[in-house]
Amino acid sequence: MRKVLLTGLLALILSGGAMAYSVGAYANDDPGRGLYLPSDITLAQAQLAIEAGLKVAKERGLLMDIAIVDAGGNLKAFVRMNGAFLASVDIAIKKAKTARGLNMPTSDLHRAAVPGGELYGIEATNGGMVIFGGGELIKNLEGTIIGAIGVSGDSVANDTLVAQAGAKAVLKSFMAALKTPKP
Amino acid sequence: MRKVLLTGLLALILSGGAMAYSVGAYANDDPGRGLYLPSDITLAQAQLAIEAGLKVAKERGLLMDIAIVDAGGNLKAFVRMNGAFLASVDIAIKKAKTARGLNMPTSDLHRAAVPGGELYGIEATNGGMVIFGGGELIKNLEGTIIGAIGVSGDSVANDTLVAQAGAKAVLKSFMAALKTPKP
Amino acid sequence: MRKVLLTGLLALILSGGAMAYSVGAYANDDPGRGLYLPSDITLAQAQLAIEAGLKVAKERGLLMDIAIVDAGGNLKAFVRMNGAFLASVDIAIKKAKTARGLNMPTSDLHRAAVPGGELYGIEATNGGMVIFGGGELIKNLEGTIIGAIGVSGDSVANDTLVAQAGAKAVLKSFMAALKTPKP
Amino acid sequence: MRKVLLTGLLALILSGGAMAYSVGAYANDDPGRGLYLPSDITLAQAQLAIEAGLKVAKERGLLMDIAIVDAGGNLKAFVRMNGAFLASVDIAIKKAKTARGLNMPTSDLHRAAVPGGELYGIEATNGGMVIFGGGELIKNLEGTIIGAIGVSGDSVANDTLVAQAGAKAVLKSFMAALKTPKP
Repeated sequence: MRKVLLTGLLALILSGGAMAYSVGAYANDDPGRGLYLPSDITLAQAQLAIEAGLKVAKERGLLMDIAIVDAGGNLKAFVRMNGAFLASVDIAIKKAKTARGLNMPTSDLHRAAVPGGELYGIEATNGGMVIFGGGELIKNLEGTIIGAIGVSGDSVANDTLVAQAGAKAVLKSFMAALKTPKP
Repeated sequence: MRKVLLTGLLALILSGGAMAYSVGAYANDDPGRGLYLPSDITLAQAQLAIEAGLKVAKERGLLMDIAIVDAGGNLKAFVRMNGAFLASVDIAIKKAKTARGLNMPTSDLHRAAVPGGELYGIEATNGGMVIFGGGELIKNLEGTIIGAIGVSGDSVANDTLVAQAGAKAVLKSFMAALKTPKP
Repeated sequence: MRKVLLTGLLALILSGGAMAYSVGAYANDDPGRGLYLPSDITLAQAQLAIEAGLKVAKERGLLMDIAIVDAGGNLKAFVRMNGAFLASVDIAIKKAKTARGLNMPTSDLHRAAVPGGELYGIEATNGGMVIFGGGELIKNLEGTIIGAIGVSGDSVANDTLVAQAGAKAVLKSFMAALKTPKP
Repeated sequence: MRKVLLTGLLALILSGGAMAYSVGAYANDDPGRGLYLPSDITLAQAQLAIEAGLKVAKERGLLMDIAIVDAGGNLKAFVRMNGAFLASVDIAIKKAKTARGLNMPTSDLHRAAVPGGELYGIEATNGGMVIFGGGELIKNLEGTIIGAIGVSGDSVANDTLVAQAGAKAVLKSFMAALKTPKP
């Protein structure tokens, strides 16, 4: 994606901005080009995070709802395992939105939101925020937040574990891409 | 319902899947067949739970709102006794939805949702959850969750008592059906 | 309750309104006394309306959601037949609330709410109103509105038919009570 | 799932109801057993529907949001393609819920909900329903509704095409399973 963008911009600059807008060459590869921000989480990455989360859940016999939001906080992908909590549909999505909405894991909110804490009552905003663990940020290699993952269905410790596995899987995929020799 | 299902599936298997689709024989008995999942709570069972709850409430002079949801968390039946709290319409329904949404009695949530508890703030999700007693699961003999009952109108102890009476009545009806000799 | 009301009114009339208010004797029979308005729909009447509606529905093979609200527009009773629409939980309740909210059958709203009609757009208020038939008022013999019934699950004509059957059943019970010879 | 259910019920019946409750053998295969109703859509089936929908979308260069709900109308799985409409997150989910809520494709609602139509205004209920095409029911071989798919992102014709492809894929998988010789 980055290379595509660079090529496009270079061409635009070199041509003095007069070049006709032409992305036909890319149309087949990415019909959504221009409709979302460069480096925003892709569906492939979201599915990678979900697969990694499901793998940990299955290994441990956990039943999970897993939600991914993009950098804009909008739902990108979601799965509910067979038998996982119905209420966790909303909780998983809200965990991901809360993490991205405040740029921190939801576990960081836990202490601040108790009575007397600095953010006491924050859960009543934004149509309901989640102030316990299970929401984690998804970042790229530059540390830019490209989305978030929210997991709900078991103990907070297990929700967090699965969420971190998902976020880590995306980060690893960036590292793997770096190491791959280019032809 | 169970018998109907079995007959259909058995016929399908015994015939090697080649049998013509024919449920005309059941149409008169259950016009809703195919529109709800086998073993989901029936209206008759929901009314049984409500009757059992009302009986306990009347014996003790309690004024109750009683709600039943199905396995999908959708409202199946509801009654509000004369003079019972108006606010308990919503509370009873939410108790039933909360119990089914998290597959546990709402009393189990109570401790986890206090300040400092693992799930503190969970009540702000799902458009409002109820984190005190009075919501109980309704199960069949196999232990499958087929719905939930939510009761609100008096002390939490009394709400719970009435809710448990309702859930128990459905379970008893399953046991009674097992013992009934078949012609 | 019905007898209490009649007796009370008769006594009030015969005494020229000067009689002392004294219903202590009934307190044990109706623990909810004082918590709801005299002549508001009772649970027994709500269930009567529902039974009458279910009877018509079963005779015609219809799958219905039936909701009853009291004179305050608050949910009093509800049933969803096996296989009846899930979306009709909300629609049936909203039909009853809409009928009571505007003191007219919801079918009366239908014409007024089309584009160019006087009430165009009214369905967007009150968290959603229903502007097609199936909501009917429940009145007593004096013509006082004591509640409303909302029915959803089939064609508007059938929804209306079932709702009217429910409302009529309550009215008939008032007439039957009048004719009953008192000991 | 079907086989598991049959075995359990058959054993129960053959043993005269006296058999000890024992499902340990299935525990590893399905840790969610008992927490969802038999024959409800599984995550594998939901993902199959999404894959089939994505395939059609990619072939035609469409950018889609695709949502799957279970038989209870609760979100089971969701994906948003890169560049697909943000607003379609809500529309796709609501299309699936609307289809299941009224047991019909959302395209069937279109005519009934125009001004003067029987259900004009129905979109204001249930927190917002979608009254144009793109929501389709998912059924099993017995014709039982096990869920629904909602697709949003392009023309109604294309949304419907993709939704139907998803629903058909699940039905085909049931047929394929029937034909597979059992060991």
